[in-house]
Amino acid sequence: MVKTNPGRFFEDYHVGQVIAHAVPRTLSGGERALYHALYPARHALYSSDAFAQSCGLPAAPMDDLIAFHTVFGKTVPDISLNAIANLGYAEGRWHRPVWPGDTLRSESEVIGLKENSNGKSGVVWVRTRGLNQRGELVMDYVRWVMVRKRDAAAPAPETVVPVLADSVAPNDLVLPEGLDFTDYDFTLAGDPHRWGDYAVGEIIDHVDGVTVEEAEHMLATRLWQNTAKVHFDATVREDGRRLIYGGHVISLARTLSFNGLANAQMIVGLNAGAHANPCFAGDTVRAWSQVLDKAETAAPGVGALRLRLVAVKSGGVPGALRGEDGKYLPDVLLDLDYWALIPI
Amino acid sequence: MVKTNPGRFFEDYHVGQVIAHAVPRTLSGGERALYHALYPARHALYSSDAFAQSCGLPAAPMDDLIAFHTVFGKTVPDISLNAIANLGYAEGRWHRPVWPGDTLRSESEVIGLKENSNGKSGVVWVRTRGLNQRGELVMDYVRWVMVRKRDAAAPAPETVVPVLADSVAPNDLVLPEGLDFTDYDFTLAGDPHRWGDYAVGEIIDHVDGVTVEEAEHMLATRLWQNTAKVHFDATVREDGRRLIYGGHVISLARTLSFNGLANAQMIVGLNAGAHANPCFAGDTVRAWSQVLDKAETAAPGVGALRLRLVAVKSGGVPGALRGEDGKYLPDVLLDLDYWALIPI
Amino acid sequence: MVKTNPGRFFEDYHVGQVIAHAVPRTLSGGERALYHALYPARHALYSSDAFAQSCGLPAAPMDDLIAFHTVFGKTVPDISLNAIANLGYAEGRWHRPVWPGDTLRSESEVIGLKENSNGKSGVVWVRTRGLNQRGELVMDYVRWVMVRKRDAAAPAPETVVPVLADSVAPNDLVLPEGLDFTDYDFTLAGDPHRWGDYAVGEIIDHVDGVTVEEAEHMLATRLWQNTAKVHFDATVREDGRRLIYGGHVISLARTLSFNGLANAQMIVGLNAGAHANPCFAGDTVRAWSQVLDKAETAAPGVGALRLRLVAVKSGGVPGALRGEDGKYLPDVLLDLDYWALIPI
Repeated sequence: MVKTNPGRFFEDYHVGQVIAHAVPRTLSGGERALYHALYPARHALYSSDAFAQSCGLPAAPMDDLIAFHTVFGKTVPDISLNAIANLGYAEGRWHRPVWPGDTLRSESEVIGLKENSNGKSGVVWVRTRGLNQRGELVMDYVRWVMVRKRDAAAPAPETVVPVLADSVAPNDLVLPEGLDFTDYDFTLAGDPHRWGDYAVGEIIDHVDGVTVEEAEHMLATRLWQNTAKVHFDATVREDGRRLIYGGHVISLARTLSFNGLANAQMIVGLNAGAHANPCFAGDTVRAWSQVLDKAETAAPGVGALRLRLVAVKSGGVPGALRGEDGKYLPDVLLDLDYWALIPI
Repeated sequence: MVKTNPGRFFEDYHVGQVIAHAVPRTLSGGERALYHALYPARHALYSSDAFAQSCGLPAAPMDDLIAFHTVFGKTVPDISLNAIANLGYAEGRWHRPVWPGDTLRSESEVIGLKENSNGKSGVVWVRTRGLNQRGELVMDYVRWVMVRKRDAAAPAPETVVPVLADSVAPNDLVLPEGLDFTDYDFTLAGDPHRWGDYAVGEIIDHVDGVTVEEAEHMLATRLWQNTAKVHFDATVREDGRRLIYGGHVISLARTLSFNGLANAQMIVGLNAGAHANPCFAGDTVRAWSQVLDKAETAAPGVGALRLRLVAVKSGGVPGALRGEDGKYLPDVLLDLDYWALIPI
Repeated sequence: MVKTNPGRFFEDYHVGQVIAHAVPRTLSGGERALYHALYPARHALYSSDAFAQSCGLPAAPMDDLIAFHTVFGKTVPDISLNAIANLGYAEGRWHRPVWPGDTLRSESEVIGLKENSNGKSGVVWVRTRGLNQRGELVMDYVRWVMVRKRDAAAPAPETVVPVLADSVAPNDLVLPEGLDFTDYDFTLAGDPHRWGDYAVGEIIDHVDGVTVEEAEHMLATRLWQNTAKVHFDATVREDGRRLIYGGHVISLARTLSFNGLANAQMIVGLNAGAHANPCFAGDTVRAWSQVLDKAETAAPGVGALRLRLVAVKSGGVPGALRGEDGKYLPDVLLDLDYWALIPI
């Protein structure tokens, strides 16, 4: 009797199925400290209890991407162990902050299935929910992946392609209870620019770069209990390289974006995301952002920016995303579309 | 006057001697988070306060191997600074969980001595005890090491070879107060297999592999305040390689064993252990287990499995341990024999 | 409109200017655990709450160098982003311990300016203060750096060179409230040597070495939110090497000095410091100390040692600091002059 988890194959999913993912995780100041060691994280609201309190919160929450990585990591054994590609994200929302001491778990509902024409694989859409120890929704997002079939001869399921919003509507963004930026300290936050200073279409070069080491991306990926072999085992790929978890690139790019977007404090919406090209140790990762949209919010002093965050490796140029063929340029690693909260 | 610690030599030990080891250590959520970053640790009881509470504990304890590494690390300056080889372990028991905030210290009693026939070294047996800030016993184990003599001309001590149990008897295992697996959630734990599903003699291939980096094993080894030069200083060995702390391989193998033994939650006994071959950065470590014995316990819903945990580097095959000459195969890194608690 | 921080140039400073540095930081057990993983830190007062309590403190404070690195890191974007060289330190004092949960911020006052004769750069002296969440002074120190001019044609400011003490006078050292070494446990501390055992002029070889990895120094430097490009981006220097943050070498040397100075528990004064030569990954760092001075203090059982702490890479010899030309020898990385508290 095989005791190890073989993962699910395409024919193991059906629309409406709800999968409870294993291994709940309690997060603490230790995970926060590691996040600051692994990424150049400096957003003041997550760095300082005192600063967060000046913004109406009881203390500094865990970084929003810690919540994302933790929730995501739990889905890997059930959703992407036999995945060929991680295709996209949509309709992501952060519903409430995660505090030190909270315990997160995840569940995913299958909301779409489409077998590929080659009959060997298919696309699975899931809506994943992260819940805390009180069962409260912490975040949710839709993700779709291409998954191998166990048996190419298995019949194709009925095709269901979910209708997904291009982006989260500003009115649907959930603002943390109590958030108030009217007494926001721009000096302590490290950047004088506020909501009004950013124009739709504006491109920001975040300037700094980080050359990635094997030990770092493995520490990060393990921290989220993401155990996909390809990130850890140099013997899996024929070229002997370890593929870096796409979420590591997300956090690198987001934290590099401090330099130019230090006041885009909280991530509250994930509109779309693509891991355009693989990242490997030795790559020097840089980032640029483009302002896609702006919105007001109901919270005092709080505005929202919709931002495209692009990670590139050396050679990538701010503003250059796709070639004439419409495909991502080879130096582009990540194209992420998200909503952040910023003082007005 | 030399101020640095020269370590003890063989003639510095005598049977009955009790050595109090230096530098007590307070453990917290930071050490736990690092354990999750350094190893693919996913056992639910140590990952989630909520899960631990559903098993009758007040919160998630620190991983049992955190306790072991911390207790062990303190002994290095007194026991193994001049050791030639770490020969074995026996009669190890975990007596109570370690909680965040606990402070551990260690002491060792010399229980055996045997000079080698070459007159240049000898074997020292010690029983090491880990104590918390209230002086309560947290764990104890016997370990024996081969230690250099300072002076080959020094007379040999009377030979005392302690009689050690082949394994800890099931009745001697100490179960954490309150432990109760009757409401155990196999879905959240990540594995449907219970005590009754494992057969004596069964071999489990844990499938996953981790390619080890220098930075990782040094971070881990330092975290336990183990300062043996050979782990950190690339100039010590003639081949310019840093020897990886054997305990790093223990934790790698144990955490890799989640995939196939996710419900073997708590380690309560250490029957035997051998570091069969050295491990170096660049090695890809895999693990397999064999069920050696099974026992019932007095705690509700809790059974015990006696497991052989074997770590191998690339080339190692599940089930292959020794060659025809009786020696460990060259790809075997670790052969560990322990008791774990698992829901019945 | 450029949104990124260009840093300050020489002509942006004027004497009397006070710069509030960005991004306050809450420190916790997570940062402590990382400090123990990144450095061979073993001083008992910082490792064990129980030991600290036996010395009259409420719990183990955060390591004094955690406070220094955190305070220092915040100054980088304002003081040293366009610095050519970090020239020196003086008049540093630790005014009160930092406890887990404390939030630190920094501010610097410009106390000196001197344009270089080449007209392209100048020296800026600042007195930096680290403050906790109650606005209490945690530490302060003077640092001077050579900074580029934005415009070589800009007029030179009036030269002001501050008069700085050669060392902090023993009477000016601030002792933590309640500190009492009369019941000091030398066994648990790991070293029998007390204040009276150290002679002025004595040189101590700390014996151990650490071969540095890229991942480690980047994790450490990021942890202090020090984001100077040259530490992280392998494409900045023509030789493709990442320069290791000088503070990483300070912490390596200080923690290596445990072996020979385990009882030099608390750092309370920083008299002087020079980063003599750059350090790169692959270097094996060793350390030696020289006793420069001794002083009594008003706290029960507490004496002070003034120590020169020298970090060297392979080839460095204890006691060898400068060549016949008066310049630091090429193997010397760090020359630090500090006051530490030790039981009498």
